[in-house]
Amino acid sequence: MSIVTIIGSGMMGSALAFPARENGHVVRLVGTPLDREIIDCVRKTNQHPKFERPFPEGVKPFQFEEMESAIQGADFVICGVSSFGVEWFAQEVLPRLPDSLPVLSVTKGLMDQPDGALLCYPQVWQQTLDRLGKTNELCAIGGPCTSYELVAHDQTLVAFCGKNPETVKKMKATMETDYYHVIPTTDVIGIESAVALKNGYALGIALTIGLNIRRSGNEDELHFNSQAAVFLQASREMHKLMQMQGAETEDSYYVGVGDLYVTVYGGRTRKVGILLGKGLNIDEALDELKGVTLESLVVAARVAKALKIKAAKGEVNLMDFPLLMHVDEIITDRKVVNIPWDEFANYLRR
Amino acid sequence: MSIVTIIGSGMMGSALAFPARENGHVVRLVGTPLDREIIDCVRKTNQHPKFERPFPEGVKPFQFEEMESAIQGADFVICGVSSFGVEWFAQEVLPRLPDSLPVLSVTKGLMDQPDGALLCYPQVWQQTLDRLGKTNELCAIGGPCTSYELVAHDQTLVAFCGKNPETVKKMKATMETDYYHVIPTTDVIGIESAVALKNGYALGIALTIGLNIRRSGNEDELHFNSQAAVFLQASREMHKLMQMQGAETEDSYYVGVGDLYVTVYGGRTRKVGILLGKGLNIDEALDELKGVTLESLVVAARVAKALKIKAAKGEVNLMDFPLLMHVDEIITDRKVVNIPWDEFANYLRR
Repeated sequence: MSIVTIIGSGMMGSALAFPARENGHVVRLVGTPLDREIIDCVRKTNQHPKFERPFPEGVKPFQFEEMESAIQGADFVICGVSSFGVEWFAQEVLPRLPDSLPVLSVTKGLMDQPDGALLCYPQVWQQTLDRLGKTNELCAIGGPCTSYELVAHDQTLVAFCGKNPETVKKMKATMETDYYHVIPTTDVIGIESAVALKNGYALGIALTIGLNIRRSGNEDELHFNSQAAVFLQASREMHKLMQMQGAETEDSYYVGVGDLYVTVYGGRTRKVGILLGKGLNIDEALDELKGVTLESLVVAARVAKALKIKAAKGEVNLMDFPLLMHVDEIITDRKVVNIPWDEFANYLRR
Repeated sequence: MSIVTIIGSGMMGSALAFPARENGHVVRLVGTPLDREIIDCVRKTNQHPKFERPFPEGVKPFQFEEMESAIQGADFVICGVSSFGVEWFAQEVLPRLPDSLPVLSVTKGLMDQPDGALLCYPQVWQQTLDRLGKTNELCAIGGPCTSYELVAHDQTLVAFCGKNPETVKKMKATMETDYYHVIPTTDVIGIESAVALKNGYALGIALTIGLNIRRSGNEDELHFNSQAAVFLQASREMHKLMQMQGAETEDSYYVGVGDLYVTVYGGRTRKVGILLGKGLNIDEALDELKGVTLESLVVAARVAKALKIKAAKGEVNLMDFPLLMHVDEIITDRKVVNIPWDEFANYLRR
């Protein structure tokens, strides 16, 4: 029996309580200061307000002030904050974790640096740990998994990545169930890059859904040729970016295309893409979806920004990324959607 | 202006008449002996019986006996027969084509050989040409394209492959429109392997749709985690098989995953997979879908058969293909669906 402490009680963090608790482990679910009402709700009903079923019996809810006792004796901590909470986690949580306590992060994203580098969050947090002189191991979860389907016990396959295979093995043993399957890997940069990048590219694919709705005049979405065309191009660009990032194994790329597949259907990113494809500009689309967390927009803009810096130094050719550059034009320059099909068709001939 | 002769007036062959004719070329559509009623219908109505809109004005229909005049002066011939017509095309058409007349094939599949090799159709036809002492160039179309969406002028991106880049370039120039975009490539084996393999793997993905319907008790198909999980595994296995086949460029693999994406939504393969996933065995599923052409079943069984021969010789490890082997068990040994999730999760550790 292990003790698993989840910090961040959003949907994905909370969903991970299911396999952990069903495996018989002690599960402590800690809300961030933004999660106060969620934790109150769990205390009253044993259910996350956005889930359709209660937690398994015995999941223990904690408010953030109670974190110290929640991490007492824990075998590892799951970081379930959104990408907008990465710095908060570095400032408020990492300094308070005993060095022996490894972290398993489910937060997805990349941070662009002034030199054009793109750091994944375990790299960002490693800088914090180095500054603090701390030695916690940083592992992460990536791959195709929507929280509500995990809660529904749908068959799910993800990767756990970490530099120390023994730590990853223990985390896999703790979390794996007959519906939650875990690929263990040491390729942190590959997995974390793949699952961040897929958000921006899923937006690109969703654009075609909106374009087809606009052209056909109805919501009938049986237009898969153009989704598949952009999926093809996204696969090319994601793979190239992952190689640039220093992915260690091809396998992380397959995790990425699987994740891209699920993200096209995943709700928020899809919705923005469809609105943009229908002809709204980015401001209008954001107005319409007020209040949603748009990690896809953030990651696409950050990657584009980093690539432009590298291109200015002659280190990359922006023509290798026509889809990403177009998504960025839409987001950053408020351009209307105009998919560069010819650039996709003649991609190899440049 | 070119002359394009399409032989085989099924849906895909006929759909290609649209871009060719809209580009102002002479388009001659020749039915096989099985297409007699289609050609009669085109003569009367200028419309393919399964399409929702008429051909552009001027597409010229021919019955098979009239093929000689239909190929007179043609710049190239499009082979639009199904994979069940490959030998017929070799026997009845290839011998009658002038050597100067290149072929652009849209037929997808692989043929297993007694030594475990898997030949794509241009390779099969090359054997016929060699036997006949003929020198026709054999090119092919692969990539994500459903015929009805092409007819609807949806944005579509495919690859044209052929050993001679000049010939491919001319075919691209003839066929490309503002909605039909063409990637030119010399990687015939890569493209043709990818687009054949994807049929078998799309069936594997569709199984999870049926499994989820069975488990949830309704047709609500919002279960993408498990589709994406199998997509991930399919990507791994397809890439490995393409490398074994001798694909020349990674790019053909991206065309393959794009094609896999569209095929999951593509009708027949999806339907069989769902029925199998719901719990029917292969005989019951085929009974229910009486009359459909099941290229997906044929290709999966052929690839599995070839791999078993190679495995017996120690040339491949069947554990590299757990998804394909399970699909084959279902088709060939009438087993019920039981997705080998653990083999996917531990794929890298074997």
